[in-house]
Amino acid sequence: MITSIAFDADDTLWHNQYLYNMTVERFADLLSPYHDRQWIMDRLDTVESGNLAYYGYGIKSFSLSMIETAIELTEGRITGGEIQNILDYTREMIRAPVEVVPNVREVITELDPRYFLMVITKGDLLDQESKVARSGLGDLFDHVEVVSHKTPEVYAEVLKRLNIRPENFLMMGNSLRSDVLPIVDIGGVGVHIPYHSTWSHEEVEISAVQRDSYYELEDIGQLPGLLLQLNS
Amino acid sequence: MITSIAFDADDTLWHNQYLYNMTVERFADLLSPYHDRQWIMDRLDTVESGNLAYYGYGIKSFSLSMIETAIELTEGRITGGEIQNILDYTREMIRAPVEVVPNVREVITELDPRYFLMVITKGDLLDQESKVARSGLGDLFDHVEVVSHKTPEVYAEVLKRLNIRPENFLMMGNSLRSDVLPIVDIGGVGVHIPYHSTWSHEEVEISAVQRDSYYELEDIGQLPGLLLQLNS
Repeated sequence: MITSIAFDADDTLWHNQYLYNMTVERFADLLSPYHDRQWIMDRLDTVESGNLAYYGYGIKSFSLSMIETAIELTEGRITGGEIQNILDYTREMIRAPVEVVPNVREVITELDPRYFLMVITKGDLLDQESKVARSGLGDLFDHVEVVSHKTPEVYAEVLKRLNIRPENFLMMGNSLRSDVLPIVDIGGVGVHIPYHSTWSHEEVEISAVQRDSYYELEDIGQLPGLLLQLNS
Repeated sequence: MITSIAFDADDTLWHNQYLYNMTVERFADLLSPYHDRQWIMDRLDTVESGNLAYYGYGIKSFSLSMIETAIELTEGRITGGEIQNILDYTREMIRAPVEVVPNVREVITELDPRYFLMVITKGDLLDQESKVARSGLGDLFDHVEVVSHKTPEVYAEVLKRLNIRPENFLMMGNSLRSDVLPIVDIGGVGVHIPYHSTWSHEEVEISAVQRDSYYELEDIGQLPGLLLQLNS
């Protein structure tokens, strides 16, 4: 019997990856006088991976990684004005309108009276809280949890604190690695809703056994039907 | 009857402000070929204030504000190498050893069996979690909450979620504005423990009435005595 439902935020409730993709393109444009575009993008990706342990997820971390990459790739020849451009991209990302994925508002509104609804997201605390507020969905959720990592241990701790048993819990998200498999690990129901663009760091190889352990939906509009089936 | 105790983290449990002060000095040294030190520090402070709403608290935000200030104050003449210095300061701040304030470990260890103990801190999620872990105090706390703002509403929401009534709650911290007055506002016991150096953004004017609404201790070693008195 599912009584509590959690949603990942970025690229599950609202569009997000496009902002990073767009900014990577602008960054490659900015440095194109110095280097080949693909090399710029590869180096940024490597720097970002190396910084994850220190900076964590989110726009500010991404921004610091862009600045580091720009200095490295230009051997310090990057100008203050060019770095100001990177700060401008950062500000635009933080201020970007929150565009809710189609059907999300309708489904959340339908589920709201009958389920304990949560957002569980990783990333920058202030930025994620701000996006929940700006999405206009904030009032529909009973709880918002921003975490630094999405591991089975972190999910188990959140559920314990909220007095939710894993067998009563369903989580839906676009990342198998972060939103689905750890939920299956702790005994909850994982629902994968693929997004057309996935950050390379979220990609994961899965086994046939894992493939059978979770549900996959094409559209959040199918979630109420799945819940009916699970709770019947 | 106090049953739950929360501690602010930075400059309450461990030293922190010195890292910012030290980095501001290094930043002023870096830009001293371009400007007067006091002007550099004043501009950084202004840029930081202006960015709080976008970037929030923490080292990454501070770093982005240093970079912005450096570009502005040099009219873009800052070099890539000089900005790399700022990134190096940032990395050093993130990696700095966590130096626990004297008597903290002893007092927390003494209180641990009898109270629900928490850390409530604002700042960067990953950085604060990492400092709790590196402090060696993590196992002594029942809960760690990282928040984006310390307002009465935020505290009330945290207590409600943890099923703690404000009249059973005491919070101790070095900031009257963030750790003490909001707790008094919601009906809990606020305890101020002044630190020798306070960030200017945390300073607050208080009235005579407010002055009588909270306790002030010189050392965390006095907390068990205050608890005996409150619970007798």
